[in-house]
Amino acid sequence: MTRVATLERAGPGAIAFLANPRYASQLATTHASAVIVAPGDAQRTSLPKLVSPTPYLAYARIAAVLHPPVTPKSGVHPSAVVDPGVTIATGVSVGPHATVAAGAVIGEGASIGAGAAIGRDVRIGARTRIDARVVVYDGCAIGADAIVYAGAVIGADGFGLAEDEGRWLRVPQVGRVIVGDRVEIGANTTIDRGAIDDTVIGDDVKLDNLIQIGHNCVIGDGTAIAGCTGIAGSTRIGKRCRIGGAANISGHLSIADGTTLGGMATVMSSIEKPGIYSGAYPLQPFAEWRRTAVRLRHLDKLAARVAALERALRGREEGER
Amino acid sequence: MTRVATLERAGPGAIAFLANPRYASQLATTHASAVIVAPGDAQRTSLPKLVSPTPYLAYARIAAVLHPPVTPKSGVHPSAVVDPGVTIATGVSVGPHATVAAGAVIGEGASIGAGAAIGRDVRIGARTRIDARVVVYDGCAIGADAIVYAGAVIGADGFGLAEDEGRWLRVPQVGRVIVGDRVEIGANTTIDRGAIDDTVIGDDVKLDNLIQIGHNCVIGDGTAIAGCTGIAGSTRIGKRCRIGGAANISGHLSIADGTTLGGMATVMSSIEKPGIYSGAYPLQPFAEWRRTAVRLRHLDKLAARVAALERALRGREEGER
Amino acid sequence: MTRVATLERAGPGAIAFLANPRYASQLATTHASAVIVAPGDAQRTSLPKLVSPTPYLAYARIAAVLHPPVTPKSGVHPSAVVDPGVTIATGVSVGPHATVAAGAVIGEGASIGAGAAIGRDVRIGARTRIDARVVVYDGCAIGADAIVYAGAVIGADGFGLAEDEGRWLRVPQVGRVIVGDRVEIGANTTIDRGAIDDTVIGDDVKLDNLIQIGHNCVIGDGTAIAGCTGIAGSTRIGKRCRIGGAANISGHLSIADGTTLGGMATVMSSIEKPGIYSGAYPLQPFAEWRRTAVRLRHLDKLAARVAALERALRGREEGER
Repeated sequence: MTRVATLERAGPGAIAFLANPRYASQLATTHASAVIVAPGDAQRTSLPKLVSPTPYLAYARIAAVLHPPVTPKSGVHPSAVVDPGVTIATGVSVGPHATVAAGAVIGEGASIGAGAAIGRDVRIGARTRIDARVVVYDGCAIGADAIVYAGAVIGADGFGLAEDEGRWLRVPQVGRVIVGDRVEIGANTTIDRGAIDDTVIGDDVKLDNLIQIGHNCVIGDGTAIAGCTGIAGSTRIGKRCRIGGAANISGHLSIADGTTLGGMATVMSSIEKPGIYSGAYPLQPFAEWRRTAVRLRHLDKLAARVAALERALRGREEGER
Repeated sequence: MTRVATLERAGPGAIAFLANPRYASQLATTHASAVIVAPGDAQRTSLPKLVSPTPYLAYARIAAVLHPPVTPKSGVHPSAVVDPGVTIATGVSVGPHATVAAGAVIGEGASIGAGAAIGRDVRIGARTRIDARVVVYDGCAIGADAIVYAGAVIGADGFGLAEDEGRWLRVPQVGRVIVGDRVEIGANTTIDRGAIDDTVIGDDVKLDNLIQIGHNCVIGDGTAIAGCTGIAGSTRIGKRCRIGGAANISGHLSIADGTTLGGMATVMSSIEKPGIYSGAYPLQPFAEWRRTAVRLRHLDKLAARVAALERALRGREEGER
Repeated sequence: MTRVATLERAGPGAIAFLANPRYASQLATTHASAVIVAPGDAQRTSLPKLVSPTPYLAYARIAAVLHPPVTPKSGVHPSAVVDPGVTIATGVSVGPHATVAAGAVIGEGASIGAGAAIGRDVRIGARTRIDARVVVYDGCAIGADAIVYAGAVIGADGFGLAEDEGRWLRVPQVGRVIVGDRVEIGANTTIDRGAIDDTVIGDDVKLDNLIQIGHNCVIGDGTAIAGCTGIAGSTRIGKRCRIGGAANISGHLSIADGTTLGGMATVMSSIEKPGIYSGAYPLQPFAEWRRTAVRLRHLDKLAARVAALERALRGREEGER
């Protein structure tokens, strides 16, 4: 076995898996050399198989062995600009055109990608991978074994404005961003530094691409957030939450541990009871959508008309008694 | 004629066009030296004119002649870091601080912008323009005559997680991103590499800014997608679709060829029949919106009350018979 | 007093403030050395205090004094690539690996961050701060005292396509982006250049992270827009508007001066009367949401049924007369 593949496209030397029943029919036709299946599917194939109650997890483990991450060569590229006041542990790789400012501490085996900009006094944990063009602003800290994908920006100022006689006055953002261990931060995702206290991303948090996390948010350990989600300032997300893509959460809220939010959900008040919540507007053919939208605007009146009908009918019944 | 302009702001030497009837009155007052108009508008002006059934298309062609793209000088900037194992065709430009890793193949006349990072074994097609700070991860391929705008990230890992006794286990993302010819990819847009098979962007696909395309999506030829749209993993978008801005499409869906989606539409199930679909929540003054939202939460009960009224009325009618 | 802090976390040497009543109880327990309070709260603490009718504004001013911005050393880093045809005023800082193309003019005291790419003929105003990895395309102009955060892309081509016998023809985007004074542009935000005329961002406009502004938009002076908002092309936003996060505004619209839009609002027609508008879909537990969504799709029929009931009841009443 030299590589993983899908059932549909596997060839000799590939191991495939079946986790989603919609692909079950492909078990019969796959050219994989071996398959990973759940006990209930074991009878459906005569191929060499690995039977696991959690085929996707078994697949993930095997894939990690067959496709180990490519570790960049350690050493500082001559084109990188690393301040003399930086502390670099052993086995660190600093790529071309990266900049690392004074006071930064880069942990053992960490890598800083091409053109990444690491600010003053930033801490990067051991074995953490900072990809190309990532920017980490002054004073922020990222734990160990984390991955920050290209283009992510960590620690830009939060959106802090005070109104001063009709003009906006910028409020200094003196907090930091503190990121835990084993965190992943997706491409072009942005996490703002705290206004006064820190913005905190817990251990094992997984953030997809193009997510915005406002100043002073706290994201609990193990929470996973899909792409395009926005979380406004000072909101606390609990531990082990699952947040669907393109969800939007207002500021100053609190979301209970273990909450699941459907994609495109809009959250405007705190969630105290864990559960599955949704709030996506249904899709319709254009002509129907237009009619729905018009009716929706008058829903309050419609409800009042229903109440009036109920009263009228009740009145008649009482009148007849 | 030396340049294009709007009817409103044109001066001598400029050619303007009328395609949108809302600007028709400007035909009388424009200072343009010539105009492009549809046959039906030809009588409305005595200016030198080009009459075309498709004035905007005619404008686009003339604009392309009057305002040709600036081609960067070919050659590799001395500050760029290009691995010796890179294959570079003739007429290629590699800008300052760009990095191109081993095994990459850069096609004839292509350009790599300042600070762009091109990964190992990446293929960039002929005449394709990669703008500043773009990141293309290892193994991805971009066709010919494409444009990738600044800050786009192509081929970061998909959001692949397996649950392992309450902890997230990272699932290696071993697929690539394969982008066709004549594709445009907007600024800061992100396209994830496939989990096992590839993420595929067809020929002539046009992607605006800040779009997220999940792992293993397939976008059909000629589809245009406006900004801020998110498409979750493994979704297949057909050919020649038009997708409005800020639309969001769930994962593992299939959208028929030729489908049009309105802006802000949310798609949670496959679309098998092409047509125009919408799903944007209507805007209201705040006080009305609050009432609507409350009513909406109780819409199921309202519908039940209407059904009860219908039953009651029917019961009375039957009772009276 | 050496620094600011929250009431909750302040220690000796810190000054804290009370602006939000929900934190009032912390006045009694804070370890701050001084507090800023409104007149009505002055009696609630015996700490040294600064009494102000606008405690948050007073805080902002004090924070700006205690935490002044760190000014980068002036001078051009040797790794930067600055064209000889660039005009650089006194006191300018150009960071490592930045590129500044011919014809650019950098105002007094401005700073260009690490790896930023400044295009041909770009103008950067005095004291404006361009952060790491920002890209400003050719010909764009940014006023004085502005801040552009990391990863922002200013002046990429707008999404301009003309249909040419089933194929997309790219429409040259010959306008620029013109940004006023004291503007802030958030991390990874994108602002497209105009198609013919310019895209214009007024003075004192504040843009948060991951915002997309389409070609030819005009944003009025003093307007503040929170993160993840998308504004399609040719829309004019008035002065002093406040736009919540993740709002989406269609193209070719006009929004009146002083309009407030709630977060996640969707705007599909012009707003002529200033006021507060909202359009966020309410969140529900999943099972309830499903029922609501089904009912919503049939809202038009429900309304028709209510009308039928009204007619039936009216018919009976009339029949009884």
